Amino acid sequence: MFNASDPRLADYANLRDVELRKSLEVEHGLFIAEGEKVIRRAVAAGYPVRSVLLTRRWADSLADLLDGLGDRVYVVDDDVMEGIAGFPVHRGALAAMERRELPSVDEILRGAPRTPAGPRNEGGPVRPPRRVLVLEDLVDHGNVGAIFRCAAALGVEAVILSPRCADPLYRRSVKVSMGAVFAIPYARMANWYEGLAELRTAGFQTLALTPDQSATPMDEVDMGERAALLLGSEGDGLSSRWLHEADEPVCIPMSATAMGMGVDSLNVVAAAAIACHSLVR
Amino acid sequence: MFNASDPRLADYANLRDVELRKSLEVEHGLFIAEGEKVIRRAVAAGYPVRSVLLTRRWADSLADLLDGLGDRVYVVDDDVMEGIAGFPVHRGALAAMERRELPSVDEILRGAPRTPAGPRNEGGPVRPPRRVLVLEDLVDHGNVGAIFRCAAALGVEAVILSPRCADPLYRRSVKVSMGAVFAIPYARMANWYEGLAELRTAGFQTLALTPDQSATPMDEVDMGERAALLLGSEGDGLSSRWLHEADEPVCIPMSATAMGMGVDSLNVVAAAAIACHSLVR
Repeated sequence: MFNASDPRLADYANLRDVELRKSLEVEHGLFIAEGEKVIRRAVAAGYPVRSVLLTRRWADSLADLLDGLGDRVYVVDDDVMEGIAGFPVHRGALAAMERRELPSVDEILRGAPRTPAGPRNEGGPVRPPRRVLVLEDLVDHGNVGAIFRCAAALGVEAVILSPRCADPLYRRSVKVSMGAVFAIPYARMANWYEGLAELRTAGFQTLALTPDQSATPMDEVDMGERAALLLGSEGDGLSSRWLHEADEPVCIPMSATAMGMGVDSLNVVAAAAIACHSLVR
Repeated sequence: MFNASDPRLADYANLRDVELRKSLEVEHGLFIAEGEKVIRRAVAAGYPVRSVLLTRRWADSLADLLDGLGDRVYVVDDDVMEGIAGFPVHRGALAAMERRELPSVDEILRGAPRTPAGPRNEGGPVRPPRRVLVLEDLVDHGNVGAIFRCAAALGVEAVILSPRCADPLYRRSVKVSMGAVFAIPYARMANWYEGLAELRTAGFQTLALTPDQSATPMDEVDMGERAALLLGSEGDGLSSRWLHEADEPVCIPMSATAMGMGVDSLNVVAAAAIACHSLVR
């Protein structure tokens, strides 16, 4: 019934071509959720479904969700799925979801709900966050997803992204996060250079995570009412502007023995996990 | 000079074929280190080099190391490298290294050095470890490598593997660990069923990490002189035998809000990072 060049399936084309997908998803205001669990979490969080592309054996388990979608459910064979997506989709179901305009940083810091308002937070006011994570220029979508998963699971209340930080709604971010990108409110800064000023104005103590072992150990920080942990990119860490502008550099203590043998850092997800755990202690 | 079927290059064949590599590496007692930094760390840790396969532009930066290898240095073009390895080797240099017999669990717990004894630990006695990590049946080599990196960087003093746990010297483990697998002593249990008995005999308090939120938070454990953190496999966590036999179940506290939205766990590397950080506090 469908072949890989069917225009109705354009939302799902070439899912492994990062550059093509980035422009296509922004232009059409969509993102892709992969697999039953993640699709259900996106729907529960209130994102509207544009369409669902799935193989026959998934049609039953998703039947309740497909009911209201009319002719926007595309059931195909495995090889057609692979031909469209450009890889074997092991989870057998893809949903094209509508993006929604993100809240501003100011709205998030005043206690905006997740975007969009889902069944679980509709209407009710949200307490302004006291513990937030700020990601500067992370490049890898998998890392962004993994960090959202940590942050959400540990109880960080919001995430702020630098203007160039990788997209939490990119397919791989969503997948690696197991849907945690839907569970935590986030916003993107309009301006990197003045990025920390808005946090300070909102009363946040800014903690810059650095490998520098002369910084304050994260567990020993005298944490204020509101605290924001700043986490830098995979290779270079935080920019020197943010590092110097922050209220306090903080570190995770490393073993002197390991450092002597060249093991002198953690990967960004491990560092984020430990630092978020300390942030919410 | 070399083509992909040259028998001298057999150590490097089909590096992405996990099953083939597992049997080939055990049979020939070798492992593969990839990239200049990791190769240098393997050499510094005392592992003997069988041979090095590299592209022309890496020959200069590794010249000092290649000097003593005589005709066991194979310089090839990029496409020959890719033909042998089965994928484009971005780091441009591969070394086949000799494995050495692992110490026994008993030796590790009494303070055996890393295997083999490297320039940095030759001769000197090693203090018996007080904080060890025990990995039960992890499947993913990348996770094993990432967990070794965390453990070494944070100061965990030794790692014990269950009989079926994935190999820390598999190429991907070594690579993801950034060579941390050479920086921390480890051993493999001979017997899973009796695995924890030996730890207890050596005076270790055994702490079983579980997602169960009724367990003791890891940060609140009253930790003894010697403590072993038990970490289970990616999907199922610890076996019920180990969970029940351990002295105390421990958990990482999770956000009730996130759990209500289905974000009810951390990935195994993030959990290991946080738990190791608490273990060495």
